[in-house]
Amino acid sequence: MSLPINPPPRMLMGPGPIDADPRVLRAMSAALVGQYDPAMTAYMNETMALYRTVFATENEQTFLVDGTSRAGIEAALVSLLEPGDRVLVPVFGRFGHLLTEIAERCRAEVHTVEVPWGEVVPAELVEEAIVRVRPKVLATVQGDTSTTMCQPLAAFGEIARRHDVLLYVDTTASLGGNELLTDAWHLDVVTAGLQKCLGGPSGSAPITIGPRAVEVIEARRHIEAGIADAGDAADTPRGSRIASNYLDLAQIMAYWGPRRLNHHTEATTMLWGARECARILVEEGIPQAIERHRLHGEAMLAGVRGLGLEVFGDVAHKMTNVVAVHIPDGVVGDRVRTAMLEDFGIEIGTSFGPLHGKVWRIGTMGYNARTDAVLTTLACLEQVLRAEGASVTAGGGVGAAREVYAS
Amino acid sequence: MSLPINPPPRMLMGPGPIDADPRVLRAMSAALVGQYDPAMTAYMNETMALYRTVFATENEQTFLVDGTSRAGIEAALVSLLEPGDRVLVPVFGRFGHLLTEIAERCRAEVHTVEVPWGEVVPAELVEEAIVRVRPKVLATVQGDTSTTMCQPLAAFGEIARRHDVLLYVDTTASLGGNELLTDAWHLDVVTAGLQKCLGGPSGSAPITIGPRAVEVIEARRHIEAGIADAGDAADTPRGSRIASNYLDLAQIMAYWGPRRLNHHTEATTMLWGARECARILVEEGIPQAIERHRLHGEAMLAGVRGLGLEVFGDVAHKMTNVVAVHIPDGVVGDRVRTAMLEDFGIEIGTSFGPLHGKVWRIGTMGYNARTDAVLTTLACLEQVLRAEGASVTAGGGVGAAREVYAS
Repeated sequence: MSLPINPPPRMLMGPGPIDADPRVLRAMSAALVGQYDPAMTAYMNETMALYRTVFATENEQTFLVDGTSRAGIEAALVSLLEPGDRVLVPVFGRFGHLLTEIAERCRAEVHTVEVPWGEVVPAELVEEAIVRVRPKVLATVQGDTSTTMCQPLAAFGEIARRHDVLLYVDTTASLGGNELLTDAWHLDVVTAGLQKCLGGPSGSAPITIGPRAVEVIEARRHIEAGIADAGDAADTPRGSRIASNYLDLAQIMAYWGPRRLNHHTEATTMLWGARECARILVEEGIPQAIERHRLHGEAMLAGVRGLGLEVFGDVAHKMTNVVAVHIPDGVVGDRVRTAMLEDFGIEIGTSFGPLHGKVWRIGTMGYNARTDAVLTTLACLEQVLRAEGASVTAGGGVGAAREVYAS
Repeated sequence: MSLPINPPPRMLMGPGPIDADPRVLRAMSAALVGQYDPAMTAYMNETMALYRTVFATENEQTFLVDGTSRAGIEAALVSLLEPGDRVLVPVFGRFGHLLTEIAERCRAEVHTVEVPWGEVVPAELVEEAIVRVRPKVLATVQGDTSTTMCQPLAAFGEIARRHDVLLYVDTTASLGGNELLTDAWHLDVVTAGLQKCLGGPSGSAPITIGPRAVEVIEARRHIEAGIADAGDAADTPRGSRIASNYLDLAQIMAYWGPRRLNHHTEATTMLWGARECARILVEEGIPQAIERHRLHGEAMLAGVRGLGLEVFGDVAHKMTNVVAVHIPDGVVGDRVRTAMLEDFGIEIGTSFGPLHGKVWRIGTMGYNARTDAVLTTLACLEQVLRAEGASVTAGGGVGAAREVYAS
């Protein structure tokens, strides 16, 4: 016999997922309403409006894809890229590889520009590659949690627009904690997830789609048999059918739009959660939320340095909300993580690929971008490092963080 | 300024989604834990075991796809079907068309056998087509909510096994309220959703995959760049790469399996919900839950007939949990639905395709397969029909339902 759910108390200070804001979890316990109930469609419209504010866009096509952030990424790529289309992916960490591999599955012709992990990609490198490759789409992530880097995007947007290339950006790791200006930076499609700075659980992928991308996607619209009506006969798609039904943005736009054309059954509880994430963020104010992430990120950065630890990568281009810390010589990274979790209930992150076993990743994001979360993590990390025989400055972590807060 | 979520009180008596069990919503308000926390992986393993009981299977590969039930359907088809593979789809309602259209997007060669809406598909028809077409996969739904029909599957399983065809079945509309024996009936892949008889919100798709299907899918396994390690170099896939990354069952199996290979970030809150749906069902007992659906479905059927309404389709093959009712001549279906919703807070369903405007669909499923829900719906429907000028038998609906309960 299984018992009711009763997860152990945790403070999730890794690279995400992090603790959901209790208000988001409470919103998700609200009762359901029907798929076409006026209350439901009103909440859908409100959610669209809230995410326009979050994404800093006027795009009509701003809604949720029902799945984790990876579903949003695949929806964007499979809907934009036809087989044989060229796509350029700047790779500066694991998620560049992910975009590459998803684009390959779309049977696109994939080109990359790559920099070492811990750096961002210079705009000149991307412009050179655009001139050489002539891609239809430039696809990148804003923040790559695998390296903590935050790619500057304004120059990418300017270059892409000038060369008539569509720019797609995933902001799952960064949105809400780092500046993101969809319209001002000329980003054509932007996707995200709830489980980082938005303070919600994974499982819903906010997306915004600008007019140039809408045109490309609409040209590929095919309506499924069994729900087409007479009016649909006139729609003659100009592009190839999108390879996925579930992630077909043309269909999902028709579902969220005034026509409310049946597609999936909306994941209502995730919608309640996604709406509450945006509502809380808009209530706080986007600039205020970004400043909060900057402050607590700076305190954590100062704190780990104050403990005598070294920070990985180009700190000037680090996301506000996560820091990668070199595991000191002689310390076994996973033993420290286990002790943090088991003795203190605090989770910090491991790493992937070339950084596996070399750095920890510590997050300060969403609900956990808070003074008490930062100071407690530093206090406990000091104890664990000392118990593992590492040389640490007593009180150095909390002290350095306190100085940031005091200044 | 948006306000906190506060949906209007509703009783969802349509074809689904229906009201989530309050216990499921409470489970979904539990705090998150990290993706590889021992508590998380233990809950994932428990969820796998619970769904083995729900699906009546010993299949090791029993887990959740993070998306609505349609995500589960597409994951099954895109992972099984390579371009050019032949698939046979028995079509007896809208969801047969959906399977057809998803299989086409997988670039499979799609063949159908079709019967009029309101009937199920005779096994002989399927066997004839299998002999003619020699498909790799036979793909069907168990219950098609568009028509309320419940396709008998034991004969399909026997035929498919004898002809060495893989049998895939979606049970979103039926699971938990109608008998489903994955292993005994030789079903190779079965998918579902939470929003019908399981009493949860849409957004998680339970799936079970038998050994024959696992072999087909594993042969197509490609590990994504950026997380592959040295051991993976030895894996040489024999089949073509699965066209979706997000819905790649080979990757999702590796994520849920002992290797815990990183894929998406699990939708933890949906996992809590899916686990609670199964836990409640297993606690009640699967046969007991099916009997409960049979009883309340019979009461609703008798009730609508007792009001003087006619029932659509082959009632002997109807799902227990939904009934389609002819809209009486002279009554505007949508006016009745609106009055039920606005004056009584009760939702009943409209229809698709050839049945649009001709029938209502009334469900008795999951948390709403209850005496009070049935009697209240019938009492209010009588009032609305009378107000709309339809000829109804006073007290006939509630009376007939009471007789079913008394017998």
